[in-house]
Amino acid sequence: MQLGLVGLGRMGGNMRERLRAAGHEVVGYDRNADRSDVTSLAELAEKLDGPRAVWVMVPAGVTDTTIDAVAEHLGDGDLIIDGGNSRFSDDAPRAERLATRGIGYLDVGVSGGVWGKENGYALMVGGAQEHVHRLMPIFEALKPAGEHGFVHAGPVGAGHYAKMVHNGIEYGLMHAYAEGYELLTKSELVTNVPGVFKSWREGTVVQSWLLDLLDRALDEDPDLSDLSGYTEDTGEGRWTVDEAIRLAVPLNVIAASLFARFTSRQEDSPAMKAVAALRQQFGGHAVHKR
Amino acid sequence: MQLGLVGLGRMGGNMRERLRAAGHEVVGYDRNADRSDVTSLAELAEKLDGPRAVWVMVPAGVTDTTIDAVAEHLGDGDLIIDGGNSRFSDDAPRAERLATRGIGYLDVGVSGGVWGKENGYALMVGGAQEHVHRLMPIFEALKPAGEHGFVHAGPVGAGHYAKMVHNGIEYGLMHAYAEGYELLTKSELVTNVPGVFKSWREGTVVQSWLLDLLDRALDEDPDLSDLSGYTEDTGEGRWTVDEAIRLAVPLNVIAASLFARFTSRQEDSPAMKAVAALRQQFGGHAVHKR
Amino acid sequence: MQLGLVGLGRMGGNMRERLRAAGHEVVGYDRNADRSDVTSLAELAEKLDGPRAVWVMVPAGVTDTTIDAVAEHLGDGDLIIDGGNSRFSDDAPRAERLATRGIGYLDVGVSGGVWGKENGYALMVGGAQEHVHRLMPIFEALKPAGEHGFVHAGPVGAGHYAKMVHNGIEYGLMHAYAEGYELLTKSELVTNVPGVFKSWREGTVVQSWLLDLLDRALDEDPDLSDLSGYTEDTGEGRWTVDEAIRLAVPLNVIAASLFARFTSRQEDSPAMKAVAALRQQFGGHAVHKR
Amino acid sequence: MQLGLVGLGRMGGNMRERLRAAGHEVVGYDRNADRSDVTSLAELAEKLDGPRAVWVMVPAGVTDTTIDAVAEHLGDGDLIIDGGNSRFSDDAPRAERLATRGIGYLDVGVSGGVWGKENGYALMVGGAQEHVHRLMPIFEALKPAGEHGFVHAGPVGAGHYAKMVHNGIEYGLMHAYAEGYELLTKSELVTNVPGVFKSWREGTVVQSWLLDLLDRALDEDPDLSDLSGYTEDTGEGRWTVDEAIRLAVPLNVIAASLFARFTSRQEDSPAMKAVAALRQQFGGHAVHKR
Repeated sequence: MQLGLVGLGRMGGNMRERLRAAGHEVVGYDRNADRSDVTSLAELAEKLDGPRAVWVMVPAGVTDTTIDAVAEHLGDGDLIIDGGNSRFSDDAPRAERLATRGIGYLDVGVSGGVWGKENGYALMVGGAQEHVHRLMPIFEALKPAGEHGFVHAGPVGAGHYAKMVHNGIEYGLMHAYAEGYELLTKSELVTNVPGVFKSWREGTVVQSWLLDLLDRALDEDPDLSDLSGYTEDTGEGRWTVDEAIRLAVPLNVIAASLFARFTSRQEDSPAMKAVAALRQQFGGHAVHKR
Repeated sequence: MQLGLVGLGRMGGNMRERLRAAGHEVVGYDRNADRSDVTSLAELAEKLDGPRAVWVMVPAGVTDTTIDAVAEHLGDGDLIIDGGNSRFSDDAPRAERLATRGIGYLDVGVSGGVWGKENGYALMVGGAQEHVHRLMPIFEALKPAGEHGFVHAGPVGAGHYAKMVHNGIEYGLMHAYAEGYELLTKSELVTNVPGVFKSWREGTVVQSWLLDLLDRALDEDPDLSDLSGYTEDTGEGRWTVDEAIRLAVPLNVIAASLFARFTSRQEDSPAMKAVAALRQQFGGHAVHKR
Repeated sequence: MQLGLVGLGRMGGNMRERLRAAGHEVVGYDRNADRSDVTSLAELAEKLDGPRAVWVMVPAGVTDTTIDAVAEHLGDGDLIIDGGNSRFSDDAPRAERLATRGIGYLDVGVSGGVWGKENGYALMVGGAQEHVHRLMPIFEALKPAGEHGFVHAGPVGAGHYAKMVHNGIEYGLMHAYAEGYELLTKSELVTNVPGVFKSWREGTVVQSWLLDLLDRALDEDPDLSDLSGYTEDTGEGRWTVDEAIRLAVPLNVIAASLFARFTSRQEDSPAMKAVAALRQQFGGHAVHKR
Repeated sequence: MQLGLVGLGRMGGNMRERLRAAGHEVVGYDRNADRSDVTSLAELAEKLDGPRAVWVMVPAGVTDTTIDAVAEHLGDGDLIIDGGNSRFSDDAPRAERLATRGIGYLDVGVSGGVWGKENGYALMVGGAQEHVHRLMPIFEALKPAGEHGFVHAGPVGAGHYAKMVHNGIEYGLMHAYAEGYELLTKSELVTNVPGVFKSWREGTVVQSWLLDLLDRALDEDPDLSDLSGYTEDTGEGRWTVDEAIRLAVPLNVIAASLFARFTSRQEDSPAMKAVAALRQQFGGHAVHKR
């Protein structure tokens, strides 16, 4: 089927290729003319037969303005899909705004990173059943080949919600492996830490794709000596904890994983300075001066 | 090759089958005569040609007494393998004790649970290279068919150490999924929680064997309504945190997972009673009476 | 000086008494006529000489509507003070709204609970220096007698911000004592747990007002047997963690204290059900059925 | 009364002064002859009338050897008091060893730091009632002047146990203030962070001696710019968490405080390197190279 695709960066560009390989007709637009199939959103809209479907794949910060710009060229019966990393709470207001012009809306959480082009993208979709149904050929082409990798999670917002929780879980999983890694590196007994991780890839309870990737990283750099522990976090991790707080869900593991990233970016910890100050005051404990 | 196998419970019994299916000659002993191939440890030792190898697969609480009883019937050049859930710090003293009689020692962390008989057992081995080498045919038969699932992790103790960390990581992984599960069940947006988990099995960063199992559990009982959250913990989880404290490794995620199990077994929390008492004292906050 | 006081519940009512005892002229309004000095906000405004100052002391949920209602009767040069538990981020919009009518605004975090009437209320104030200066006689009367208990923390919002962090710290402090309490109650060695807490009230690093209160609670009920651990949380605790996430501040202790309150209110934990389900799947571990 | 006092470092030396000021006869011994009243333990024993009481106040690492050396010169009916930072689990074996020679034993957790000489030392005592009774004049002289600051917590071991939990709580309390401090320093709204802490010293729920000390530290160095966050931990904090794990007590807050100290001493975090490696592998996320 036909699909308009706005945003042809690493993700969008790869998705265009995967969709075309599956026989779909993709009209892509990007501000960067080198990647773009058309010179404007107007032209993109023109090249699609109605009812049109336009997938927006742009950074979270410009999603709303992009969607509004796309909507200028669409009309009753058309459909906009946001596949970016929007916060789930932005979806319902957006859908209502579009609905006033008769435009439908789907939110899609997309997982897969640099591996998606080849292996397929996992898709978590929120929106009305009829809209999901209409896009199924596109979803089928993007998703992995197996029986999993796609879910209609609920109404508008549910797709980004599921993706948010996915990323929160991911934070916790990664940090669990990371803590085990650190403990093994500190052990006086285990002399073959990369070998231990490699061995776990089969027959264990901890086997996973993340473990495979960690093994791959240790193959390339057995003691990770080229890397710094400085680690960014993304909106999804923060939103997950915020949402847990709103719903009174105890989220100790995921929150600890998020906080560890915050700590990793600090040169020195103001909190620990306060602890050091207290120790000095009450115990005359020696402290480290800067 | 020949192997003596002491302890034919669920794990040991399945291992005997897997080893025999691979063509090895296993002489098994168990206190339960129905399962046992011989009537005594003496008979077991007699039936094995020297140098003998005896694998002990008994509950942690009786490992030392069992190994000492086995050693009574062995001698110079023989080899004892402990495949149970021993604490790594018990291995070196045990090895030294056996060494005075010329008996070698390997410690093996075994993962695989009820799935191991069919899929193979992941093996983490600690001990001398020569002892590992001698047992390789056995290890080859027990391990999964692929290229992973076996590691010689280091000297005596390293096998149980690696298994301990494996279980610590497992605690963290499980709890990360569990927190995500709880958040999804509380969400007003996601109407298809089991479907979300099922979809993640392909194309996502969180795909893993544990996720497959969670999907399986949700297939059987979509809202886990038949289960209580009361959850036991095992030695390995506690040892992992103890060891992290000894080595000054921050282990927030794994410790939180362990503590959550402690909490799950409390009818009421003495700590929270103290918090409630404080709130009542300073704020006149209403409290729940028992 | 003259002060209008809107909201004469437990806090507001006690504050009126403390202010009057200090010689101030307080005109109080409450929806409950029994407590009220006037029958309407219009009458309250009438009874005050300009420039007027009106202190609003109502539940967080009705603060904005109350302030807007009060503002209807005030004008250029008047001043509204919010002493309730507003979220700091509500203060700046509110101040801007009032500024369009020439009305000044101060936000005041008030601590003291049921003890404030006698001991004085700690006050954390946000707003313009001139407004703070004008209200100082009132602040002096409300605050404790000593040299502490009052701070002009910064511009509008800073007062509620400081109070929010105060409450976040309070969560952590309370939970630290609570964990120590639980550990002592579980110990086989310590036979006099209330005596230990009482002894700590002097000469130790952990002496505090909260400790005094815990001792008081243990005097009344030595094993807290009359209490349930079910514990509410308030906005400030949640806002503190949300704000820490916004500012990338690792807040492990306060977050853990907040999460423990969430857990205390659960009959059973969906997360732990998921853990139990996983354990059953991979290990055939016995689980507790409901 | 008479007391032998072994170990005249900062703590022991101050205690000798406080005891003498109260009229007691203290015979002190220290390896450092400048501080010592006698030249040997033999002379110390000789100078005391029977039944003798000798208080040992030495670093934890040499407590057992010191006590054994002291015991060489004591006999039936004498009493040894350990006021050092021993692990509670060392007390019972020590008491049994001394009992074979008829020597009694008390373990005393001592709090007070550099402030104890003037304000008195809080004492948590474990041992037999008759031994506690015999030492009461000494305890009375050492403890603070008020009604608190002393407890007979239980049998041998209970004194060090109570002190251990005291220190665990102290970790949590300090870190709660520290987190609040960090959040305030990051806030765009609060312009007077030291003023906020100072104000909290009266009328608030968070008032405490630790808060007074933090205010003192901020008076000396308002942004703690002279300090590093590098912070040591002591045995008691680790033992508290170990003991909680043994007793299945969830100790999230105290454990998080302990882990934060571990983190404060790391130049880079191996765990976070592993997280960074994973992010690089699955997402092509930019990482920081060392």
